[in-house]
Amino acid sequence: MDFKSLANEYQTPLYVYDFDYMKAQFDELKEAFRGRKSIIAYAVKANSNLSVVKHFAKMGSGADCVSIGEVRRALLAGIAPYKIIFSGVGKTDDEIREAIEKDILYINLESEAELGRVELVAKELGKQARISIRVNPNIDPKTHPYISTGLHDNKFGVDLNSAKRMYIKAKNSENLDPVGIHFHIGSQLTELDPIRESAEIVADLVRSLQALDIELKFFDIGGGLGVKYKDEETIKPYDYAQAILGTLTAMDMTILCEPGRFLTANAGYFLTKVLYEKQNGEKKFVVVDGAMNDLLRPSLYNAYHGIEAITDNTEDEREVDIVGPVCESGDFFAKDYKLPPLNHNDLLVVKSAGAYGFGMGSNYNTRGRSAEVAIEDGKARLIRRRESFEDLIALEQEFLEN
Amino acid sequence: MDFKSLANEYQTPLYVYDFDYMKAQFDELKEAFRGRKSIIAYAVKANSNLSVVKHFAKMGSGADCVSIGEVRRALLAGIAPYKIIFSGVGKTDDEIREAIEKDILYINLESEAELGRVELVAKELGKQARISIRVNPNIDPKTHPYISTGLHDNKFGVDLNSAKRMYIKAKNSENLDPVGIHFHIGSQLTELDPIRESAEIVADLVRSLQALDIELKFFDIGGGLGVKYKDEETIKPYDYAQAILGTLTAMDMTILCEPGRFLTANAGYFLTKVLYEKQNGEKKFVVVDGAMNDLLRPSLYNAYHGIEAITDNTEDEREVDIVGPVCESGDFFAKDYKLPPLNHNDLLVVKSAGAYGFGMGSNYNTRGRSAEVAIEDGKARLIRRRESFEDLIALEQEFLEN
Ligand SMILES: Cc1ncc(COP(=O)(O)O)c(C=O)c1O
Ligand SMILES: Cc1ncc(COP(=O)(O)O)c(C=O)c1O
Repeated sequence: MDFKSLANEYQTPLYVYDFDYMKAQFDELKEAFRGRKSIIAYAVKANSNLSVVKHFAKMGSGADCVSIGEVRRALLAGIAPYKIIFSGVGKTDDEIREAIEKDILYINLESEAELGRVELVAKELGKQARISIRVNPNIDPKTHPYISTGLHDNKFGVDLNSAKRMYIKAKNSENLDPVGIHFHIGSQLTELDPIRESAEIVADLVRSLQALDIELKFFDIGGGLGVKYKDEETIKPYDYAQAILGTLTAMDMTILCEPGRFLTANAGYFLTKVLYEKQNGEKKFVVVDGAMNDLLRPSLYNAYHGIEAITDNTEDEREVDIVGPVCESGDFFAKDYKLPPLNHNDLLVVKSAGAYGFGMGSNYNTRGRSAEVAIEDGKARLIRRRESFEDLIALEQEFLEN
Repeated sequence: MDFKSLANEYQTPLYVYDFDYMKAQFDELKEAFRGRKSIIAYAVKANSNLSVVKHFAKMGSGADCVSIGEVRRALLAGIAPYKIIFSGVGKTDDEIREAIEKDILYINLESEAELGRVELVAKELGKQARISIRVNPNIDPKTHPYISTGLHDNKFGVDLNSAKRMYIKAKNSENLDPVGIHFHIGSQLTELDPIRESAEIVADLVRSLQALDIELKFFDIGGGLGVKYKDEETIKPYDYAQAILGTLTAMDMTILCEPGRFLTANAGYFLTKVLYEKQNGEKKFVVVDGAMNDLLRPSLYNAYHGIEAITDNTEDEREVDIVGPVCESGDFFAKDYKLPPLNHNDLLVVKSAGAYGFGMGSNYNTRGRSAEVAIEDGKARLIRRRESFEDLIALEQEFLEN
């Protein structure tokens, strides 16, 4: 990719997404589940740009949404309601109402109290809400604590006994229709065993529900497939699918899969220009025009991103901290990273920035968010305009009294 | 304050700011420096809502800005250019140009390379740029590593020798006018000694510059005054001023002070409604409608915020985790916090949310940012409208191809 021309044309900081790479990832995963009814429901939270979602829509993707805003994005981008699911631990009554009215595939429940709210709202609407329950299999996914979600001491899902109780309640309710079961034990998973174990536990629950005459149609294995940021050994989609399918022998269920990072992370590049280098004591800093408000992952998770310098300089590499203009010590992209000496306006390409990048962006320090560009079939096009100062103050200006 | 009525009128999640409290804090600090020329330059990054900045403008405040966006906010809110300073480790040429053209008080330089850029831009404009240099006194401020900024191994400021070299360079340049000196060793400072030591080091540098015929007018002591989030012993403004003034005997300089948190943190309340409670294993969770996209501090710094429940429930308190709807384990407001049993629609008031709250907010999970409300003289008024779904997609929708 010609990052230099892109930076010149669209300015920096800039997000660039390789749409062909996204498609290849999607195809590989879809192919792994071949011969089985399956829906890949793209986890919109990973990268919610409307054109990205539309790109997946065209491939036949469904959508995993965690707010009614994400549901609206999915619909607007052309994903059929019957391929949209609505997950998340905290849904307001308004969100539940809209999800039922829009007749999406199902609502993923994460607590008994939530079941009660959904039942209430469905009753008010005189409808039956299709639901699934997120089971917390209490398996350690061996990932970063902030993105691990399958252990009992976190807020996600319900334990096996509660799930069973809830399914019985749902079956006995006129306003609920239990159609699916769901688990998601964490993100950036690189080990297959915890996934297989979780699937086994959940499949067992499905069988014991069958004995109670509760027939579920959707086996939702969540997202979480890890990607290579540095030197991770990742799970192959084929092995992933085999591990899951192995737990479902003699069960006729549609597999639902909710990948986010796997489809988008390594399709994304964050471009930022060098402002200047500076030396403080023993430390050399490269100050760039992008910041934590553009890409929060290093600051929030201490996440690693590979970084490439585009420069004419050919001198030896040194260890540098790559930092942005925001007034926080936590504003960095990498620490002790090897780069050659850099000049004003040299370009840095921060890799693996396609998932949980732009979407976590803020306007901290009154910095407008970057533009986003898609590359498809070798052609670049803008898919989100750069935020201007006027955009940032639009919702405040009318209230500026004299 | 009648939080319940506010939540009903403006909906939740909601930021509420006590403007009278802000004024009282401002007055106390201003009073502490009485009898000395001083400018309180409000650090806009702490809470950049235009009406908040205007509130300080009316008190005669200046503004400490870290982006050209913040400079524009300050001007729009009515702060005079000659009370505006522009700090920050990474300024683009465009930002430098606009700052010079707008004739603000001075640009705070944080590196030799930046001095070079400012000189270049000023030359292009045929102007002389007033500058100050941020000195890094290498003093441990004893605060959170992410907000500590006065040690050599972070990106801020320059060491004493570099500063001296830069002042000489600036004095010899036709396009630079060195008028100030600056230090800021960290935020949420609760100990006076590191501040006094830093001031002494910087005052010594001023004296040695006088010997070189470089006469500085502004002694900029940065921000950083800590506030009480829980049980911190904070520094009294009077003691703070005395400690600083004690280092400046026989020096006729104007004090510049850049408080952010001190003026706004405890003026702010974040209101969020209870969706439901849930139990996972040993853990009880209270799920609320606000999330890390509204208030990032707990997630990013593990910051403590006092939380008050408004409920009719009078049963005994239990230890709960207070969590939001965002699909991350890091989405929480407090852990193991004592609250009474709570019902759907009960209100939680998250305190000390006026600084580094709304401003670090994002649209993660396609969640619109909260509205903001000011309370002044007992009257409430909206100062920022709640973000709608349409606002969130506005910059993307036109690019949604068919
Ligand atoms: C329920 C659920 N599904 C899917 C995902 C997507 O995860 P990933 O991007 O790791 O595939 C998440 C991520 O947090 C999630 O919570
Ligand atoms: C240079 C500078 N001045 C002032 C402030 C404001 O700090 P506080 O809000 O702690 O007063 C900061 C905060 O990061 C800063 O970096």
